[in-house]
Formats: sequence, C-alpha cells, structure tokens
Amino acid sequence: MPIRNDATLKQLLDPASIAIVGASDNPDKIGGRPIHYMRRHGYAGRLFPINPQRAEVQDERCWPALKDLPATPELAIVAVAGEQGVRAVDECAELGVGAAIVISAGFAETGTAGRALQDAMTARARAAGMRIVGPNSQGLANFGTGAVASFSTMFLEVAPADGPVAVISQSGGMSAMVYGLLRQRGIGVRHVHATGNEADVTVADLACAVLRDPEVRIVLLYLESLREAGVLAEAAALARERGVALIAVKAGRSEAGARAAASHTGALANEDRAVDAYFEQHAILRARDPQELVRHAELALRGPLPRGPRVVVVSNSGASCVLASDAALERGLEIAPLGAATQAELARRLPGFATTVNPVDITAALLSNNGLFGEVLPVIAPDPAADSFLIDIPVAGRGYDVAAFAADTASFAARAGKPVAVVAWQEAVATAFRERGVAVYADEQQACDTLAALYRLQRLRERRARGARAWEPAAVPGDASEVMPEVMPATGRHYGAGTLSEADSLAVLARHGLAVAEHALCADADAAVAAWRRIGAPVAVKACSARLPHKSEHGLVALRLDDEAAVREAVTGQARTLARLGVHDAAWIVARMHDGLHECALGVRNDPVFGPVILVGAGGKYVEAIDDVAVLLPPFHRDDVAAKLRGLRIGALLAGVRGDPPADIDALAEQAVRLGRYAQAAQDSVASVDINPVLVGARGQGAVALDALVELVGASPASGWADQGAK
Amino acid sequence: MPIRNDATLKQLLDPASIAIVGASDNPDKIGGRPIHYMRRHGYAGRLFPINPQRAEVQDERCWPALKDLPATPELAIVAVAGEQGVRAVDECAELGVGAAIVISAGFAETGTAGRALQDAMTARARAAGMRIVGPNSQGLANFGTGAVASFSTMFLEVAPADGPVAVISQSGGMSAMVYGLLRQRGIGVRHVHATGNEADVTVADLACAVLRDPEVRIVLLYLESLREAGVLAEAAALARERGVALIAVKAGRSEAGARAAASHTGALANEDRAVDAYFEQHAILRARDPQELVRHAELALRGPLPRGPRVVVVSNSGASCVLASDAALERGLEIAPLGAATQAELARRLPGFATTVNPVDITAALLSNNGLFGEVLPVIAPDPAADSFLIDIPVAGRGYDVAAFAADTASFAARAGKPVAVVAWQEAVATAFRERGVAVYADEQQACDTLAALYRLQRLRERRARGARAWEPAAVPGDASEVMPEVMPATGRHYGAGTLSEADSLAVLARHGLAVAEHALCADADAAVAAWRRIGAPVAVKACSARLPHKSEHGLVALRLDDEAAVREAVTGQARTLARLGVHDAAWIVARMHDGLHECALGVRNDPVFGPVILVGAGGKYVEAIDDVAVLLPPFHRDDVAAKLRGLRIGALLAGVRGDPPADIDALAEQAVRLGRYAQAAQDSVASVDINPVLVGARGQGAVALDALVELVGASPASGWADQGAK
Repeated sequence: MPIRNDATLKQLLDPASIAIVGASDNPDKIGGRPIHYMRRHGYAGRLFPINPQRAEVQDERCWPALKDLPATPELAIVAVAGEQGVRAVDECAELGVGAAIVISAGFAETGTAGRALQDAMTARARAAGMRIVGPNSQGLANFGTGAVASFSTMFLEVAPADGPVAVISQSGGMSAMVYGLLRQRGIGVRHVHATGNEADVTVADLACAVLRDPEVRIVLLYLESLREAGVLAEAAALARERGVALIAVKAGRSEAGARAAASHTGALANEDRAVDAYFEQHAILRARDPQELVRHAELALRGPLPRGPRVVVVSNSGASCVLASDAALERGLEIAPLGAATQAELARRLPGFATTVNPVDITAALLSNNGLFGEVLPVIAPDPAADSFLIDIPVAGRGYDVAAFAADTASFAARAGKPVAVVAWQEAVATAFRERGVAVYADEQQACDTLAALYRLQRLRERRARGARAWEPAAVPGDASEVMPEVMPATGRHYGAGTLSEADSLAVLARHGLAVAEHALCADADAAVAAWRRIGAPVAVKACSARLPHKSEHGLVALRLDDEAAVREAVTGQARTLARLGVHDAAWIVARMHDGLHECALGVRNDPVFGPVILVGAGGKYVEAIDDVAVLLPPFHRDDVAAKLRGLRIGALLAGVRGDPPADIDALAEQAVRLGRYAQAAQDSVASVDINPVLVGARGQGAVALDALVELVGASPASGWADQGAK
Repeated sequence: MPIRNDATLKQLLDPASIAIVGASDNPDKIGGRPIHYMRRHGYAGRLFPINPQRAEVQDERCWPALKDLPATPELAIVAVAGEQGVRAVDECAELGVGAAIVISAGFAETGTAGRALQDAMTARARAAGMRIVGPNSQGLANFGTGAVASFSTMFLEVAPADGPVAVISQSGGMSAMVYGLLRQRGIGVRHVHATGNEADVTVADLACAVLRDPEVRIVLLYLESLREAGVLAEAAALARERGVALIAVKAGRSEAGARAAASHTGALANEDRAVDAYFEQHAILRARDPQELVRHAELALRGPLPRGPRVVVVSNSGASCVLASDAALERGLEIAPLGAATQAELARRLPGFATTVNPVDITAALLSNNGLFGEVLPVIAPDPAADSFLIDIPVAGRGYDVAAFAADTASFAARAGKPVAVVAWQEAVATAFRERGVAVYADEQQACDTLAALYRLQRLRERRARGARAWEPAAVPGDASEVMPEVMPATGRHYGAGTLSEADSLAVLARHGLAVAEHALCADADAAVAAWRRIGAPVAVKACSARLPHKSEHGLVALRLDDEAAVREAVTGQARTLARLGVHDAAWIVARMHDGLHECALGVRNDPVFGPVILVGAGGKYVEAIDDVAVLLPPFHRDDVAAKLRGLRIGALLAGVRGDPPADIDALAEQAVRLGRYAQAAQDSVASVDINPVLVGARGQGAVALDALVELVGASPASGWADQGAK
C-alpha cells in the first residue's frame, strides 16, 4: 500500500525548489529538457541543476552533487541511469528531499532483477519519508506553476497553454498524446503527469492531488491496470463533490489487449466487467480510447451535462438530419418531436420547405439569412424535447457567414443551460466554432457518442447521490455478522473440496435474508417421503454432497414428484448412482416445486482488486452460453439492480410479454441487494457464490433460490469469472 | 420502372455537346457554375449556353433558345425554375435531346402537386425517349472528361483531381461532402453524381454506368431509400466481375432516421435488416456513414482485401499495442502470435526490451534506427499470423525520420500483397504516409473498423463465388410448382381471414420439402383417440382453425398426452372453449411429441422491395422479445445459414454446451433453404410464413416444424416485420 500524504503530493505538483540530477546544457537531452521547460514556462521556485562536470547549464548555476546544495530541494528529478540513478535516489532520501521523480528506466519493466532493485530503492525512500514517482516515468508537468518536471517532446511540438484540464497516465506516451489531442482542440491543459512503473505514487494518488487544485475542472486518466480500488474511489468522491468530470481509459479490455499491457507496463489483467462496475459505482466515465477521452472532455468542459436523453438536431442539410437521427437512436438517445408552439414559432421563421418537427432542417435558407441559427436556437431552447442540442453544419462554404454562425451558437450555448455539440465536417468550420468555445465533432457518430456518454455520467452521479441515502444499512433477517458458521446446522456435515453442499449453501443464504426453496435435507428414502408429505405438493429430489457440484449431469435430480413411490424410487435410484460414483456421504434435498415465470441467476465473484462483485441476470442450464448478466459492486440499491435488469436481454421478458404478467423484478433485486450485503460481510471467507436458478414469479409473487453453491476462499480456482453462474 | 438504356446513360456521363438552359455570366450562379467548371476542367465537347438576354456568357457564344441551336445537344442542363423549367424539359424532349439534368427544384419534394407536375413532365420526356436526371438534382460531374454538369460549390473549395473513385448520391449535399472527404485524404475522384428526386435515373442506374468506366476502381453510394432492388443488383454483379469495391451508406436505419429521410427526399422506409441481407447477398459493403464510407474506400484503393482475420500490430508505443489489440478483438479480428522463426528473426533485429510476439512493440529504438520499420516488416510478411498489418505510430516528433518510415512502409505495402493500415494521431505524420499512397487512420478503432469491414467484403465475395455453384436448383420433395393449391387436401377447409389454418400451413410446407411433426387432423374426440393410437407415443392436441392464430393464449393446446381419457378430455375441453369463443369450424391436430434439444424458428416476410426475406433463429414463446434472428435473401446455401446461425446468440447453444451434443444445424439450415425456395416460388400469393417452434435435435436427428402459420397476400397487415415469428 502506498503511503498517502497530501502534503508531499502537493509538493510534487507545486514544489518550491527542484534539483535536477544529471542536468544537461542540451535542452534536447533528458537532463536538459526539464530545465528548458521550467525556464520557458516561468517556474518561480529555485532550480538546482546537478552535474559534477559543469559550473553552469542553460545559464543556470550548477552544483557538483546533491550534498553541495545550499538548501534541501523539495523535489528532485533523477535523470541519470543505472546504479547512478539508484545512488541519487538514496542520496535524496538521506538529505530529506520530499519527493523524487525517477525518469531512469531499467527497473521492474525489465524483469525480476529490475523489480527487486526497484522494490529495495522504494523501501529505502519510504523509510526516509520520501515519495517516488516512477521509475521509468516521463515526469510531471504543471503549466499552472511552470514546474514542468518532464522531458516529453510533445511540449515542444504543441505549444502549452494553461487551462482547466489534468491528464494523468501510467504511460508517458499516452500522457503526451492526450495532451496533444487536447491542445489540437484548443483546450488548455494544466497538469500532464506520467507515473511509469508506479513503485510508489500512482495515477490515483495524483488524481487526488490535482483534484485539490480548484481550477481543475476535468481530470482524464489513462490506465492499463487497476491494482487498488481505494485511492481512485477517493479521487472519484472528490470529483463528485466538486462537480469535476473524471473520465478514464482503462486499456487492456480484451484478452489480447491485456496480454499486450502485461508486456508494456507489467500490468495485471483486470476482469473488464468488474472495471465497468467499479467505474459506474464511483461515477467515473469510461472512455474507449484516448481520442474518445478527449472528445468527452471537450463537451464536459463547455457546459452542463445533459439532464435527459432527448436531442434536438438542427442542420442546414437534410441528409445530416437523417445521419444524426440514426446516430442518436443507435446510442439510446431520443429524437422527440418539438411541441406544437415551438413548431409554430419555427414555421414563422423558416421557409415553407424547412422541417420543424425535430430534426429541424433549416435548409439552404441559411444562405440568405446568416442569422437563422441565432433566431432558431432560442425558440427551441425551452422545449422539453431539448435536453441537448446537436447542430450539424456539413456544408458551409461560399456564401455562408460561418463566423456569425459560430458567434450565435456560442452566445446561445452560454445561455442555454443545456449542452450544445456541433458537427462540422470541414476543418475551417470546426475551427471557427472551437475558437468561440463550442465543442465540435467530426461526425454525427462521435457527437452522439459523447452526448450519450455525458448523459450516462449524469445518471451515474444522480444514482450516486441517491445512493448516499439509499445505502443506509437496513434490517436484515438473520444475523448478518455470522457470515460462515463453523458447523452448518442444516446438515451437520463438513464440506469437502472448498465448496459448501447445496443444503449448506442454501442455509447460509437463507440466514442472510435470501428466499430459498422450501426444502428438507433427508438421510434416506423414509425421511424423503416424510418431507414430501410435510410439504404437501410436488417436490424435487436431489442428491446433496459438497463433492457433487455437477449433480444434474449425473442424473441426480428428479423433478415434479408427487407420490410416495416416485419419491422413494428417486432416492434409491440416486443412491445407486452415488455408489457408482464413490460418493458415500450424500443426503437428499426434498424441495417444493415452486411456481414461477423466469429462471434467473445471482452470483458473487470475489475480485482481488474490487472485492465482492455481484452478478445478476438470466439463469438456467445455459447461463454461461447465454451470457446475459449485469455486474454491480455492493453496496447498491434495489433500483440500481432493476435498472441494470432492464438493460439486459432478459429485461424484455421480465417486463411481461406474450400475455405474461410482469415479473417480480423488485424481489429479484432485493435478493441481489441482500446477496451483496452478505458478500461484503463474508468477503474474507467466501470466494464465490452461484445461485441458479432463482425462480422469479409474477409481480408480488417473489423470487426464490432453487439451487446454490458457495465456494470458500482457498478452494480450487476453477470457479473464475469465465464460468459465472455455472454449476 | 425506369427505362434502362446504356447508350443514353453513357451520354449522361460523356456527352459530346451540352446545352445550359438558363446560362449565366456569373460563375457563382447556378446557371453559370457548370459553364465555369467545364471551361476550367477542359471539357472538349460543344457548349451551348441558352439565354435570350445575352449574346455571350463567360466568353462563350450564347443562344436565345434551344430551337435556335445549330445542332441537337446530347445533354441539356435545365437551370431555370418553375414553369420555365418544365417548358425547357419539354422543348428538350421535342428536339430529341438525349438526356436532361433538371437542377430546378419545386417538384415531388414539395408535396402532391409537385409530384404530379414531376410525373407528367417525366412521362412526356420518356415518351420522347429522353432520360431525366433529377429534378432537384445538384448535377453530374465527370472529371475524366471535364463534363462537370453540376453547380456544387465544393469543387471550388476543394480542388478536383481525376482518380479511380466514383461517388453517386441521392442527396446533392452528400455527394459533395463525400467528394470533399476523399479529396482531403488525397484521393482522386472522377465521378460525382447526385440524382435528386430520381424521377427517372437512379443511383443504381448511374452505378451501372460508371462501372463501365474501366478506370473506376471504387464506387461509393449514399442512399436514403431503396425503391427497386434489381438495377443495384446488376451494378453489384458488374462490380464483382471487375473486382471493384462497391460500398454504400443506406441512411435512415433507425425509425427517427427514416422519418427524417421521408421529409428530406420523400424516401420510403426500408426494413433495415432486409437492407443488410440484400447488401450481403450482392457483396455490397455497407458503411455506417459517409466518413466511414471514405475510410473503407481509402484502404480498398490501396491494395488487396484481407484474406483472413489475423492482424499483426507493429508500433513504437506500448500503449498503442494495447489499444490496437483491444480494437481488433472487439471487431472480431484476431491477434495471433507470430511463429517461432519470425520471432527469433525479429529478436535479432530489435532491442532486448522490445516484444516480438504480436503486437510487435519496436519501442523508442525507432529513434536510433530509422530503418527499423523497413527491416521488421518484411520479416513478418510471410508469417501466417499476418492477414493484414496495422502500423501504429502515435509518437513521431523530433528525432524521428517520418519520411523514411513512410517510404519504407509504402514500398513494403506495394510488395506485401496484404493490406497495410497506418494509425497516425498527428496530422503531419498522417500526411507523410498518405503522400506515399498508404491508407492512414486517426485511431485504432477506425483502422480496425475498416480492416474488419474489408475482410467481411472479402468473405461476401467468396460466398457469392461459392454461391454461383451452390445455388443450382436441387431436387425438392413434393411439387414445388404447386405453391398454393386451391383446396388444401389435408383439411378440405377454406381458410378465412387471409391466413391458412395450422394444418393447411403444415401441409403446404411439407409439400415443399420441410419436415413437419407427424400429425393428423381430426374432426372429433374419437378420431383424435384413433390418431393417438396410430402415432403410438405421447401427443399434443391442438385446436385448429384459420380463425385461431393465438391458440396457446386461449388454452387450446394440451401437451404430452398419452392415454385415451386424456386425449378425449383435451378435445372435449377445447370444444367448450371454442364454443365460448364462437369458433364452430375447428378441428383438432393430434401431433407426436417430438424430442429435440432447442426451439428455433423460421419465417418469411415478403418485402415490397426485396421480395421474400427468410428469417431463422431462436424460437419459442418469447421469439420477439428474444429477437435473436438472422435474415437472408434467397437463394442461399445451407452453409450460409449455418454461418449466420453461428453469429446469433443461440449459436453457442446449438454448438453444444453444458453436456449437450451439438444440434443438427445442417437440418435447420436445409429447412431454411427449402423455405427460401418455397417463398420465391410463392411470392405472389404468400405474404408471410411463421414456423415456430422448429424443434432441432442432436446432429443427425433432424429439425421438425411443430407449428406454422402461412399468411396470404391481401391479408391484414398485422404480421409486419415487428412481430416476426409471433403467433
């Protein structure tokens, strides 16, 4: 666990003095470039170049060694390689330097020996109370203070301009590329930080640090692996509190991508659906790639998030109206008709052949009235069909006053209180709008991607705000503290192979408030018959042993039995099979055949990074092949589950189709909430839970677990993410 | 149906003389611009400006009226509005002009009166043997001959250059925009044609025409509706024959998009899945939007199509390796490891910390050896893991010799015989590669979209080539010519309400070679009992009447009956229900309960544009809600169906999971083929067919239709696309 100390993190971003070990007179060398940058960008603190061979570098006085400095620097940049670099870090630690940025490579990224070197160096630094950025870092750059402790070439190629955006990346290349993309769009960037090997300071640490800069309004992250969830969650909390958009690329989504990430930054693979659930939980918006990261940032920077899914499209091209409508609908946005009053008012201002319903095709009439945008937009603004605006100007050459369109749009956007995205195919048009501070996209797909994403961020924030209230611990039937009793009272049997028997699994879940099928555990046929009589309805008879996770494949499940002979024959027949299989400690579960509409499934996976992760979705025999499952991190509210279920394919069925009544989604969701609470309480002992099927009845009829398997920590790792829900 | 006459279509594109009615001296006026363009682009034929007010326009001699011309022009551009325009078209027709491009608007796009005007004008022109482009057309431009009969502003803004690409669009704006995007990428464009209202000449007509130009190598279409499938199919056949990539945007995919298209070009909505199936059938590659159209064109122009899904990624950035891997896998491409020999050879050339497996991270070593790309690529080229190359150079500033990379890549691409796509984030890098004729993409997503799309086009072509052999008519059990017998021999009943009864539906399908459940139609309980005895196995008893399409919702289906009392009670119980429902002409189907693994469904929709369309996919009660269905246009081969089924969600189940054997996909596919043959033969009488469920057994066990509903032409339109498979 990294040390977290806000004072030293602040020193990293805003140091009063900086030593450069390995200072060079050549501004194109790694040891020369930070000095060049800091002079250029007006760093106001003290610079201490260190180079035993020179008295001056780049017109700054130079010292032969750290120990010769007149004062202890708050920050040191270590730009010398190999053993020299390690020695320099040690010297910094001994002198009481606050933090060191280790640019030198040759550590963990090269293999085991390098990792050992890195670990030892980091341990010594920590012992002395010094923070380390890197090693193998491109450095940190703060254009707010001019403390540009980075050697990135990109700051030479694309001129920096201070602004409200922070970029933090494991990869130095990506920090530079995201900076470059932002600057291409005319967006000012204050922080550009690369953490490299993350021996100590992580992307999440720096995210917390930059979020304390009140002028930072957007924080963009590039990650190849998430090693600990806590600090980033803190950063996300800070971001929500301040209304700052926190947007992240987590690359290595696919198997091949994760493999590539492992050889790039030694990144450990994360289960991608857990990453999604984690980001959702904390209202971190996930972007697919750095380009999308920057596109989302541009709109988030220019105004409020969309409060709803309805987009009004305004264009001077009929074809663009079609393309924008397709793009919006394919991303779950809506093109709602404008109100009658709005349409009437538009009709007064537009030529007869224009369309006013939405999309609004103002046609080439824009040629004869360059003020048309400025007239039309305010008419639409108050209409409830307008949660956001997509202004699409593919054609704007001769005869069009693009500067006027841009000015009108910008002044409208400033007053509208709703997001405005422009689609401009031509670079000159895009530039005109961008110079006025309007977000511009190259095509309808990209604009709608961003509108849909920011609307999602809005909903995640709202959910989170609701959640703060909804997640108060509720009364739960059973004693939630008793997460894994020593002896399972329902069976008295010990459990082999790291899994609980079905009866024990059901018993544990029942004690934590989950509804399970009415059942009895029976030692023999007589007991089974007695149980069937007690239940008084058709039953299932299932052999039960912790050694039998795949009982249905061995024919050890008999369904819909409703007479003594059948119950008896099921037990004796299964006993023969068990004997053949060499299982001698089995008992029988006799369970009521419950009625229901749909087979669903619930599950828990205890993720090494994110802790317990809850799965809920379609169940039944083909659960893995069907793969229709939502993933949530507890704690969550019933409504969150219901919303997730609606997004699944089974959502349409649960809503009630083909004469079926709507299913009891609330009951299923409540089971998921309770399972989440159990999973959190039991995360040290329970590796996974599979409940399949959960039979969901009509609304008001509940949802009942028919079969369950609890796997304990330390069990075989067979039950990975791949076979979620499988038994 | 438009007249099709290749000679006049050729005249449109390469006329020996052109009259401009409404000629203007001002090159920025609609009547002036074509003259300006034709003079600028060296049109070698005769120009006949017509303007009664002037003796000269733009230094060309001008005539007062068409009738005063010294010769009959092959082509006339009508650039005068309203009644004058109509008169001019009539005069052209009377004089024997070959074709007229009617730029004037105010016709069908304005409503009913305008449509009548347009229809009458077109009818007179046709009667005289004259073709019409438009009205409401931006015109046709041929930069090969300089015959630029267009007033598009875009040719002033982006300088034309002749090249191998043709752009044909209903929308004038889109024809210009696609032209602009192509030229931005440095691609030469010969044809830019806009058809406007398509009173006569359509996009498909012009596609056929440009495909006869041997220098055209890519044809790009923008469509908002498809009104007839035949001519475009001809164009597609020509394109396949010549190895020309035919790529199309069909906008108006979504409901809102189709609505917008209707007000833009009066386009009729097409069922989008039928459009997809039609494009697949003819190996037309569909692009999502004009930007994607152009991105696909760029790679298709630069080399061969990918022969397989395996991409090798080569980059100087580890992060890009991760992003490219993610993007490739998400599009169904593969990142296969390079062979041991290839890796060993790469290891000899690359520094120790580079990765050689694929992605190949050549690292910043590129800085010290600018020839590294040129060395590395030929080593990889023969490896079977390389169906295509993605070269990713996000970082290439100071110290990099980008010109050398571009030259090396271009010379490699010219020899490789495999597609090479470059990802360059920086415009300067992109330009360097593009100038060398290498396809360049702004990010990994776009590059992988295009690689995946072109691989799909390759497979569509291969399928089509196979198909030419596979689609020979095969022997079919039953008499396929008897598509809809007058009297259904199985029942003798007439069919009410435009649908056949279940028994009649099954009988028709059986006669066309489909396997249907063993069953008998019974008039009463005695007959039903006798049928059960004859079948000698458990049966289903179902009331049967053409007035009862929703029998299961009325409880008129009893399953798994296997004793006389149960069969008798089912018939008498259902008879009571039928009496309550007022149905007095029912009989009973007694059908064997067949065994099987999976419930699938087959269907036919008779599309007004594409003819019979075959649906195949997951069946059962929730067929619409599950919506897991593939769409094909007949004729097709069994293997085409099997490939489609693999792409469905049910594909994983049919392959065999959780201990199930693989299902008899071939039998299901064969049923689909036979249904396709029937649907083609019966398309004048059958509006739709729903077969659900089709019970599919284990491999070798067949697939059997358990229930079917044939809807006749002229029936109520209830059975639209929306409720595919619903009964």
